[in-house]
Amino acid sequence: MIRSVAFQGERGAYSEIAALKYFGRNIAPAPSLTFDSVFEKIKNHEVSYGIIPVENSLYGIVFETYDLLLKYSLAITGEINLKINHYLLAKQELQPGKIKKIYSHPQALGQCSNYLKKLKNLEIVPAYDTAGSAKIVKNSDEEVAAIASKEAGRIYGLKTLKNKIQNNKDNYTRFLILGNKIAHIPGKNLKSSICFELKNIPGALFKALSVFALRDIDLLKIESRPIPHKPFQYSFYVDFKGCLQEVRIKQALNHLKEISLSLKLFGSYQTGKTYSS
Amino acid sequence: MIRSVAFQGERGAYSEIAALKYFGRNIAPAPSLTFDSVFEKIKNHEVSYGIIPVENSLYGIVFETYDLLLKYSLAITGEINLKINHYLLAKQELQPGKIKKIYSHPQALGQCSNYLKKLKNLEIVPAYDTAGSAKIVKNSDEEVAAIASKEAGRIYGLKTLKNKIQNNKDNYTRFLILGNKIAHIPGKNLKSSICFELKNIPGALFKALSVFALRDIDLLKIESRPIPHKPFQYSFYVDFKGCLQEVRIKQALNHLKEISLSLKLFGSYQTGKTYSS
Repeated sequence: MIRSVAFQGERGAYSEIAALKYFGRNIAPAPSLTFDSVFEKIKNHEVSYGIIPVENSLYGIVFETYDLLLKYSLAITGEINLKINHYLLAKQELQPGKIKKIYSHPQALGQCSNYLKKLKNLEIVPAYDTAGSAKIVKNSDEEVAAIASKEAGRIYGLKTLKNKIQNNKDNYTRFLILGNKIAHIPGKNLKSSICFELKNIPGALFKALSVFALRDIDLLKIESRPIPHKPFQYSFYVDFKGCLQEVRIKQALNHLKEISLSLKLFGSYQTGKTYSS
Repeated sequence: MIRSVAFQGERGAYSEIAALKYFGRNIAPAPSLTFDSVFEKIKNHEVSYGIIPVENSLYGIVFETYDLLLKYSLAITGEINLKINHYLLAKQELQPGKIKKIYSHPQALGQCSNYLKKLKNLEIVPAYDTAGSAKIVKNSDEEVAAIASKEAGRIYGLKTLKNKIQNNKDNYTRFLILGNKIAHIPGKNLKSSICFELKNIPGALFKALSVFALRDIDLLKIESRPIPHKPFQYSFYVDFKGCLQEVRIKQALNHLKEISLSLKLFGSYQTGKTYSS
């Protein structure tokens, strides 16, 4: 079965690589302009799944993803961690010293700053997208290069001038797989994600976390995001070990409802494996 | 006494307005290119204080500020909330319909998108800074306008074409006042800020929050940030009611040390008042 999978960015984006690692090669990639359009395509059943970055090990959470999770009523059906390796790509073999321009997304340029400092006499050009910069290089007749994924090089027929040029080798991005329906998957290593807004009572957050601790449910992550029109009040996003179908977790969530104004369940899914891009 | 206060941005930046509200008019403003340079100036005693945005009620925390708090050993000595009001400014009275270009920071342009949609036949030009865009307009001989603070209009001698043009009236930014030494201020309404990294033990976060709950210390805010070189592990930033000098708080922090790998105290300060820009 070919699954259509939406992601933000051009063909060859790191999100597409994550999709290939997660689903295998047999997918129909649906590149999308914005994060919002990925959510829209899933909601409108234009694609089977979407894949979206949620967190980077160096830069922290992707705000927009958290806010869109709450805006749309989609389900998280999986996750995957991708080690980000940046490649220096060009149309033909070229001494890095001969390059006149290097294109990439500003964040990728920053992540490769140590390598770029060693190159002289070249212009560094910020682009809207890493994979998009590979596309620019493909269409250019100058001595230019892009910093992008190996997969982007493959898609646009570029040669690798240098691999893994990022400063920090511990650069991982975690992606969520999104669908329309909460999946009831069996198995070990399951985790669940929820979001809640607490009542304005003393010790509310401590009490909220107690509902898990009192039942020996391991909390994996907590994040807060501002609530629009309620200045300096927050929604809390929590990941914990276990499955929404388990009795003790149903009990914990019933307990949580007692102290929450709202509670949203995003689903249960296999804890993500880590792959290298 | 004239206090020198560093902030990021050009003269007239919202950070400078926050400084004027907090310290009064009698300050020597020290505009700075980056957040990092604000921290550097304080550390090197080039200025008495710095003021830096930490959180916006619509967009959430300012990542960079949290990471710099941990990087530098500075103290938080105060906070202030500023209601963000955007003004449409030009060199002379001008019908908004006659404007050819509007300059501002992309975030400010986004925050005024409803107003901008009503204007026709004009070019919207992203600039590096709201106050910087007021400076551009001052130096231009075209029919151009900037979206910036009222104070930026005053500093660059611009006229207000329209006030409070932002979409969302509940747009508040919280700023921290930073200095070199933790102040021991008396008074009510004190809060304290700390940061810690937890040991890898089950229920670590719940146990960390317990040290406050068990002593009836009100938790005000919790944020997590990734720890570099430890993928998907986090430092926790916590604000709570009370002063680091109180016995029960000293006891709570001793308790917290038992389960933490590191603990950093940023200081105690008056809970911030809210002003309008």
